[in-house]
Amino acid sequence: MHWQQKCQKYLCMLCNSMPFLPDLLPASSGEEITRGFLQELVNILFTYICKSSQRSSKVLDFHHPHQLKEGLDGFNLNLPDQPETLEQILVDCRDTLKYGVSTGHPRFFNQLSSGLDVIGTAAEWLISTANTNMFTYEVSPVFILMEEVLLRKMQSIVGWSSGEGDGIFCPGGTISNLYSILVARYHFYPEVKTRGMGVLPQLGIFTSEHSHYSVKKSAAVLGLGTENVVVVKCDERGKMIPAELESSIVTAQEKGLVPFYVNATAGTTVYGAFDPLDAIADICHRHSLWMHVDAAWGGGLLMSDRHRMKLQGIERAWSVTWNPHKMMGVPLQCSAILVKKRGLLRQCNELGAEYLFQADKHYDVSYDTGDKSIQCGRHVDAFKLWLMWKAKGSQGFGAQVDKCLENAEYLYDQLQRRTGFELVYKNKPEHSNVCFWYTPPSLRGLPLGPDRDTRLHQVSAKSTVAPLDSVMGRHYCI
Amino acid sequence: MHWQQKCQKYLCMLCNSMPFLPDLLPASSGEEITRGFLQELVNILFTYICKSSQRSSKVLDFHHPHQLKEGLDGFNLNLPDQPETLEQILVDCRDTLKYGVSTGHPRFFNQLSSGLDVIGTAAEWLISTANTNMFTYEVSPVFILMEEVLLRKMQSIVGWSSGEGDGIFCPGGTISNLYSILVARYHFYPEVKTRGMGVLPQLGIFTSEHSHYSVKKSAAVLGLGTENVVVVKCDERGKMIPAELESSIVTAQEKGLVPFYVNATAGTTVYGAFDPLDAIADICHRHSLWMHVDAAWGGGLLMSDRHRMKLQGIERAWSVTWNPHKMMGVPLQCSAILVKKRGLLRQCNELGAEYLFQADKHYDVSYDTGDKSIQCGRHVDAFKLWLMWKAKGSQGFGAQVDKCLENAEYLYDQLQRRTGFELVYKNKPEHSNVCFWYTPPSLRGLPLGPDRDTRLHQVSAKSTVAPLDSVMGRHYCI
Repeated sequence: MHWQQKCQKYLCMLCNSMPFLPDLLPASSGEEITRGFLQELVNILFTYICKSSQRSSKVLDFHHPHQLKEGLDGFNLNLPDQPETLEQILVDCRDTLKYGVSTGHPRFFNQLSSGLDVIGTAAEWLISTANTNMFTYEVSPVFILMEEVLLRKMQSIVGWSSGEGDGIFCPGGTISNLYSILVARYHFYPEVKTRGMGVLPQLGIFTSEHSHYSVKKSAAVLGLGTENVVVVKCDERGKMIPAELESSIVTAQEKGLVPFYVNATAGTTVYGAFDPLDAIADICHRHSLWMHVDAAWGGGLLMSDRHRMKLQGIERAWSVTWNPHKMMGVPLQCSAILVKKRGLLRQCNELGAEYLFQADKHYDVSYDTGDKSIQCGRHVDAFKLWLMWKAKGSQGFGAQVDKCLENAEYLYDQLQRRTGFELVYKNKPEHSNVCFWYTPPSLRGLPLGPDRDTRLHQVSAKSTVAPLDSVMGRHYCI
Repeated sequence: MHWQQKCQKYLCMLCNSMPFLPDLLPASSGEEITRGFLQELVNILFTYICKSSQRSSKVLDFHHPHQLKEGLDGFNLNLPDQPETLEQILVDCRDTLKYGVSTGHPRFFNQLSSGLDVIGTAAEWLISTANTNMFTYEVSPVFILMEEVLLRKMQSIVGWSSGEGDGIFCPGGTISNLYSILVARYHFYPEVKTRGMGVLPQLGIFTSEHSHYSVKKSAAVLGLGTENVVVVKCDERGKMIPAELESSIVTAQEKGLVPFYVNATAGTTVYGAFDPLDAIADICHRHSLWMHVDAAWGGGLLMSDRHRMKLQGIERAWSVTWNPHKMMGVPLQCSAILVKKRGLLRQCNELGAEYLFQADKHYDVSYDTGDKSIQCGRHVDAFKLWLMWKAKGSQGFGAQVDKCLENAEYLYDQLQRRTGFELVYKNKPEHSNVCFWYTPPSLRGLPLGPDRDTRLHQVSAKSTVAPLDSVMGRHYCI
């Protein structure tokens, strides 16, 4: 290839005078090599994207860790003292993709994300080229404003009035849920910021048995303790039972816990169930508790006129987690925490570091949103969602959600009719999760019971190769 | 342009039958349009990269928030109901870059990052195309192994023996520092995970007055309280004074605090100072305290044979924060927390969620590293560092650090000689930070004192336009 010859010649020339590879662009006459290198990389990526979208290709060419570490076909993971050539770098890139998982493949079924959105990918390419940080307006003027526009839009879709609402984009839904507990604790006990948990009563948190493990994880991190997370029972569909919540609150109080926070889930991880938000909001109101809705997975349904009623009552939440990287198909990661009470995020987290957040800048420093965050530097995740919103419009997102849920209903219908498949629950799916067991012929005559269950578990572990992520718990969810 | 005509024709055809833009790739005959779109985007990005590297171009075409929100030259930040055309999407991308900050510009001086590494950028393009998550081996086999290789290498460079060391890549140095306090607390008080801070004594943390604000921020988040962060005095160079640390520990104990953690800084944010690590390690050893080294900024110097002695004693730390996105020039974000005691990170953070971390997978599940993390989903940051290491080699990173520090010494020499500039401290810089005041002619005759100081502050706020980030506190640091 023409560019490679040029590049090689140039590199040889350099190697004679320098012991290491120069930075590409600043090098004299580096532009041509840089363009050639990036163009070749883009060719590799484009070929990968096209191949990944074909059903006939493999989702993953699986190798065990020790096999990859031994260096398959010369793919060497170890780090060199001396630089490699640009040609070798491109080979490394090809190999990295070759042994990885094609997440954009039509047969890749992750729990909560799949597919590759080209506009979202393009947005991420732009973000990495802009290579900036979300702490202050002066270093990210456009991205900070895009984040604000997105948060306002999401708040209005949730149903908050225009005078309400704050928020921030976070590195994933677990961190968003962590924020919700953090600001709830600060709202009731602002002294915790300076004095710590030692001056507080023993606080209690409530969440359903089908909720995401991030609630417990956050309780551990924040110093609340996982034992103080009260797990509330669900019905057979995986929805929190309001009466159980209320009795759990009373019982916890009797044991000396001080309830302050309830997490309701809109779209559970495994069943895709929606907790009854209005009933939970009534209970939170009665007991003066912070109501959070973890809509990391279910938030996408707010974009659909047909399905948004499943989140009826979300407007009564005090905070909401919503991950556009799940149902809305934004590349990983893109998660938002929305907080109803304006100013609380900043009060809870600000420390006013003088080297970043000077008050006498020549612009409106309320746009220096970095001090709302528990991070200092923060990756620009908002732009991916912004650009995809431009490309699809609200209507496009709605249609995408409708289509996914139609597909889930189709699968549900098919499984009901097909021999060898058993649905985990009988009702029509509310989200795109469809949970089922596959029963091979050898197990079909067995009587129901623990022995059969054990063998079914073994089947589901063995009959999936990779990605095993499509197996949840011990049944299949698609 | 040829592709645009085709694309336009195709989109018109679609618009007649569909109310929204289809996903690019899966659409029938979508490949050509996809290639055309991505190619055009890459042309925009390449033009931007080349322009950003020219001294004659602007670092930023500054506009106030209200100006950008009003829609300069038709750049509309608002989110539409209906999709835009692909051509408009490309215009949006151009505008996003046009009004943003050129962080790769030779005159862009952020506190702790600058320049655009083309290999690192290429790596990020690949990561976003692979669009995966770091929770399990099955969904990220290659990236998980690369992370392991990098962490081992960094641990060996820190000076830990091969039997020691664990770690994880995090979304930024603040989160890495938060991890260090989290695992330290768990190490001394494992019951905190389940029972919370209520069963612990009032813990105390020690850090220098020049250390990063993330230590206090983490104390607030983790429920320790910012008041329980004891701020230790520094010498005139910004280095923690060991005798002050020791007396602070004793005083805190007398007041009823239980000291458990000391943060030493290797490369402070403003002065670039290195705390005396060996002396601090002695004190930590004497009092059985966890020693953390925040080498987010200074860690890069470990790559240089000439400068690594400035971190003498880091091998005695129990945990280390090291941000390759700072001195090593990796695109944002790339930060690692290293923990000496193997297994501690996992024990502290694991919750064993069944839908992700099944124990009966058919491969070695110790590679399912996601449960070490406080996140669930985690962006692939390790690959950027891995690919850059391949391209530069350890020697290349070392040479890059040497060059930066030579430049800092050059600047220091120049400032000493030039009228109108005053160095904040007289000694030669240890890192690439050079701190100085600019004194305009009108202030040069004034006597030293508070009045002159106030006016100097005003000068430094006004004489910098954007990025204002290059002003730290009220003097300049470059």
